[in-house]
Amino acid sequence: MDVAILIYDGFTALDAVGPYEVLSRVPGAAVTFVAAEPGPKRTDTGSLALIAERALGELRAPAVVLVPGGPGEAVASQAEPVLDWLRAAHATSTWTTSVCTGSLILGAAGILDGKRATSHWLALERLRSFGAEPTAARVVFDGKVVTAAGVSAGIDMALALAARIAGDEVAQSIQLMAEYDPQPPFDAGSPATAPAPIVERLRARSRFARDAR
Amino acid sequence: MDVAILIYDGFTALDAVGPYEVLSRVPGAAVTFVAAEPGPKRTDTGSLALIAERALGELRAPAVVLVPGGPGEAVASQAEPVLDWLRAAHATSTWTTSVCTGSLILGAAGILDGKRATSHWLALERLRSFGAEPTAARVVFDGKVVTAAGVSAGIDMALALAARIAGDEVAQSIQLMAEYDPQPPFDAGSPATAPAPIVERLRARSRFARDAR
Repeated sequence: MDVAILIYDGFTALDAVGPYEVLSRVPGAAVTFVAAEPGPKRTDTGSLALIAERALGELRAPAVVLVPGGPGEAVASQAEPVLDWLRAAHATSTWTTSVCTGSLILGAAGILDGKRATSHWLALERLRSFGAEPTAARVVFDGKVVTAAGVSAGIDMALALAARIAGDEVAQSIQLMAEYDPQPPFDAGSPATAPAPIVERLRARSRFARDAR
Repeated sequence: MDVAILIYDGFTALDAVGPYEVLSRVPGAAVTFVAAEPGPKRTDTGSLALIAERALGELRAPAVVLVPGGPGEAVASQAEPVLDWLRAAHATSTWTTSVCTGSLILGAAGILDGKRATSHWLALERLRSFGAEPTAARVVFDGKVVTAAGVSAGIDMALALAARIAGDEVAQSIQLMAEYDPQPPFDAGSPATAPAPIVERLRARSRFARDAR
């Protein structure tokens, strides 16, 4: 089972690596990092690069397509070779998925039209411009299109996918090996629970807020 | 503030990238991936490489040292240049930290002698051979030595560290931007909660179980 994770300069590392950690442990899965141009891709905070080993054209019909988000999404979602590849891959995929603002790239490719979908909480309303119905949930399944909320939500999505693909026991084994028994030191991971001044400060600074003015 | 993340062939991707995602967003932090030999380092499931941009000798006195785990630990913890660098960096660090079986590398360097520490649940008892007191907690602070349990526990550790370094509000902001509001689909992330047959199967298969025979 081929799993293609699309990366590009300015993606968010954990968006891609959280699901990679889970999906690469599904028996029979072969995970490949792909990019318009193979080679090192810089993450959004700049000090880390991951290597895309294959060009898009080398992996035309993956069973699972996964698109991470990050500020580089703004460029990737206007790159026709990326959008063309996504449309073609989606036509034959079993699952077409995104994490965080990766859903905006799926949207730009026309894949979310008429679908319920999620994104990073700061970008959620953006989904409307692609004909999607913004859905404030951590993981949203709509047919074979699966979208996750911001950054770390990709781990939860990948475990849910692993269960659909290989069964609950496999997903539980992967969860236990990754010791995914989260104990965040604060209850600040959602705009519904984080201190309101922090939510407002991040909202005011967001590139999506700036775009909307 | 220099943060050095040590990587090596056969490390577990999320051990390193979870904390990177958090610590690279602490104001003033400069995170660098280091290795005995710079260049691409393969993760343990083989299909992803991260780039170590600096040799150990290029970053001799980081404020924060972070050592991920993974099966490659067995080789890294016998590499004298790695152990020498860790001892020297620990002498001047503000925080010396590990995720998962990265604690076995700290142990091999003599850093855990007399310390309370944790590790991946399958490796916890191994800490005794380094004079450490195995402590089954998700994140263990003992002075400036901070160890996290398996794989995903590095995210929780890094948020706790971010709070110590830069204050609760910074850590909460980072948590909210990463939308770290975990909702695992199963309660299987700890040997205390996972189905017993899964725990026993993984224990029987573990390289630590094999070593112990």
